[in-house]
Amino acid sequence: MGQTNQTVLEDFKPSSLNQPCQQFPQVNSQRYARFRIVAPQAQNVHVTLGLGGRGGTTLIKGEDGVWTGTTEGPLDEGFHYYHLTIDGGTFNDPGTLNFYGSTRWESGIEIPAHDADFYTLKDVPHGRIQGVLFPSRLTNAVIARPAYVYTPPNYDKDTKKRYPVLYLQHGWGENEYAWWNQGGANLIMDNLIAEGKAKPFIIVMTYGLTNEGRRPGSRPPGGTNSIAANPTNGPARGPGGRGSLPPGFGNNAAFETVLVNELIPYIDANFRTLADQPHRAMAGLSMGGAETHSITLKHLDLFSHIGLFSGGVITTNDVNNTPDFRKKVKVVFASCGSRENPGNLNANHDALESIGIRNTAYVSQDTAHEFLTWRRSLREFAPLLFVK
Amino acid sequence: MGQTNQTVLEDFKPSSLNQPCQQFPQVNSQRYARFRIVAPQAQNVHVTLGLGGRGGTTLIKGEDGVWTGTTEGPLDEGFHYYHLTIDGGTFNDPGTLNFYGSTRWESGIEIPAHDADFYTLKDVPHGRIQGVLFPSRLTNAVIARPAYVYTPPNYDKDTKKRYPVLYLQHGWGENEYAWWNQGGANLIMDNLIAEGKAKPFIIVMTYGLTNEGRRPGSRPPGGTNSIAANPTNGPARGPGGRGSLPPGFGNNAAFETVLVNELIPYIDANFRTLADQPHRAMAGLSMGGAETHSITLKHLDLFSHIGLFSGGVITTNDVNNTPDFRKKVKVVFASCGSRENPGNLNANHDALESIGIRNTAYVSQDTAHEFLTWRRSLREFAPLLFVK
Repeated sequence: MGQTNQTVLEDFKPSSLNQPCQQFPQVNSQRYARFRIVAPQAQNVHVTLGLGGRGGTTLIKGEDGVWTGTTEGPLDEGFHYYHLTIDGGTFNDPGTLNFYGSTRWESGIEIPAHDADFYTLKDVPHGRIQGVLFPSRLTNAVIARPAYVYTPPNYDKDTKKRYPVLYLQHGWGENEYAWWNQGGANLIMDNLIAEGKAKPFIIVMTYGLTNEGRRPGSRPPGGTNSIAANPTNGPARGPGGRGSLPPGFGNNAAFETVLVNELIPYIDANFRTLADQPHRAMAGLSMGGAETHSITLKHLDLFSHIGLFSGGVITTNDVNNTPDFRKKVKVVFASCGSRENPGNLNANHDALESIGIRNTAYVSQDTAHEFLTWRRSLREFAPLLFVK
Repeated sequence: MGQTNQTVLEDFKPSSLNQPCQQFPQVNSQRYARFRIVAPQAQNVHVTLGLGGRGGTTLIKGEDGVWTGTTEGPLDEGFHYYHLTIDGGTFNDPGTLNFYGSTRWESGIEIPAHDADFYTLKDVPHGRIQGVLFPSRLTNAVIARPAYVYTPPNYDKDTKKRYPVLYLQHGWGENEYAWWNQGGANLIMDNLIAEGKAKPFIIVMTYGLTNEGRRPGSRPPGGTNSIAANPTNGPARGPGGRGSLPPGFGNNAAFETVLVNELIPYIDANFRTLADQPHRAMAGLSMGGAETHSITLKHLDLFSHIGLFSGGVITTNDVNNTPDFRKKVKVVFASCGSRENPGNLNANHDALESIGIRNTAYVSQDTAHEFLTWRRSLREFAPLLFVK
């Protein structure tokens, strides 16, 4: 984080994620956040974000009945989820937009990043986010499931051209909105493509079934995203195993069925894809990385490019135990924030290289298990795709 | 509403708009709603929805510190916005999804409608909701604005076919998400097209600029959507006029520029449209109806079909004062809920017929200025489009 006793500069501005016309929360040039909540008769108002006691910021009621407070120190750059605790209940900050995380729609705040340019809306050709409903009957009593599909700029202009596809998964407690709302995946791709840094490809984002069937109110042990907080944990392998899914944590088998048997055939039938293994990638963040790990290694007939963002690594054992790995896998990419466990990430990188597996280990500087790590991971991963 | 002293049946079920795994709010078969809020140290918790004092429901704290309450009577069928007042502050119900209305993301609840079939997800071919960013520089210091575009089933299959377009606007305080999230416009169209009741056409939904430039916290006199609560008010015509926009209510001129000079050219350049006046319609609800009224009558070179949903009417004066109205306008449609002012709507219908203007006046039974009125209005309006 940083020093906590510096003089707080009074240059606070509304967060870019505030609801229209809302002045709070605010962020200053030192990356402090300031909150303001109207609840004159409340007994206590706490914000889960900050450096204060138990990891949050306790607001103080002024004479006007308005609760205000500033974090005790600077926050990391990038996007953060948070919520309020008011008189013992959990609510969102009415000043901000909501983003689905931790299996609930949470408040979000954006601390401007020094390198925000790569996910900034610019005057370049823009792709589209296409919301589709794809038939899905194999895993549950549903008719169709939603997916959001990024089609690159000019997809609709040259209707003869076909594109490779990246299946891109969110983390635990998130959903199919995460990568384009919290992540800015569409803007990252628009900008990379405009600069000639990435080939145009389609990105498919669907729900990883990480909550389905969970009992109301249950939470996995260890809190949000705990499974992949240590990138050496590796993927889910079954009950009780290292890095396995806690009870109620998700349904990886069901998601595999939805992805492999329903979504991929739908996408290949309804979008102009290059529908073969060399032109199909999968990546995911955190829990989505664990899903990517298990599904790609099981289906190397389908996938040739693998990206794990704060979501485990491909190990030398994985390579040795997966038939045809060396022949079929073109890109191996793993990443994490510098505040996660980059030592293990880098050690695994070197171990893979030592057995002749070219791979990329990317460490996002000064970020933790949050979306700036994953925005940067996509920026680093995308240029590697479909170039061989 | 209905009788308020009946025995409340204990067959409450979670609202269909609850967040995943959330059990409250609930609705019973009599259309009563029940709320449950955890906030053990709160002094008072009030829900803005219901029949109680000042139009809401006051919750009572139980011995377990949980606040509960049931509406004093049945609610209208369909979608309702609401929020909580907790200790004098405005917050959302953590149990439900949020929907942008009243210039804030509000809680939403769905009271099952007896005729919900027409907007239910079914096993029929589905269109897509395509999120686009269109260049927009004429009205403000922005680079691009978002729009969501419904493309009908099989739009991407036959890439030679071109489609008519409906520009469909939300109400005051809402945004470009309203028609597909609150309104279910995509499902309504999927179902109508599957039954052969409507021709396939494209629907374009963008932000009506109804908040832009508003001062924080300001509200129009009379509350949400007040401008169009009386369908005879007519559209905005300028400061001080009957049905005019209160200060800060919106920026109709700027929206006209965005729509006519930026969005329509973008859509015609980037989607396979039939890009002429006979194949272009505009409709809107409430404030969006007022926008539709003023923009279509000023641009009959662009639009041939007009729909006003709880958003005013085309009057005999409009017809007489608009050159070439009789030659250029193919469909005139106005609607409102039976709890609004159907008498005036029907009188205006007859007046138009008396001067030889065929038109449709649709009254949604047992609904007010809310989304079930507008879902039904789209169901009635869509089959009339592009059939001549």
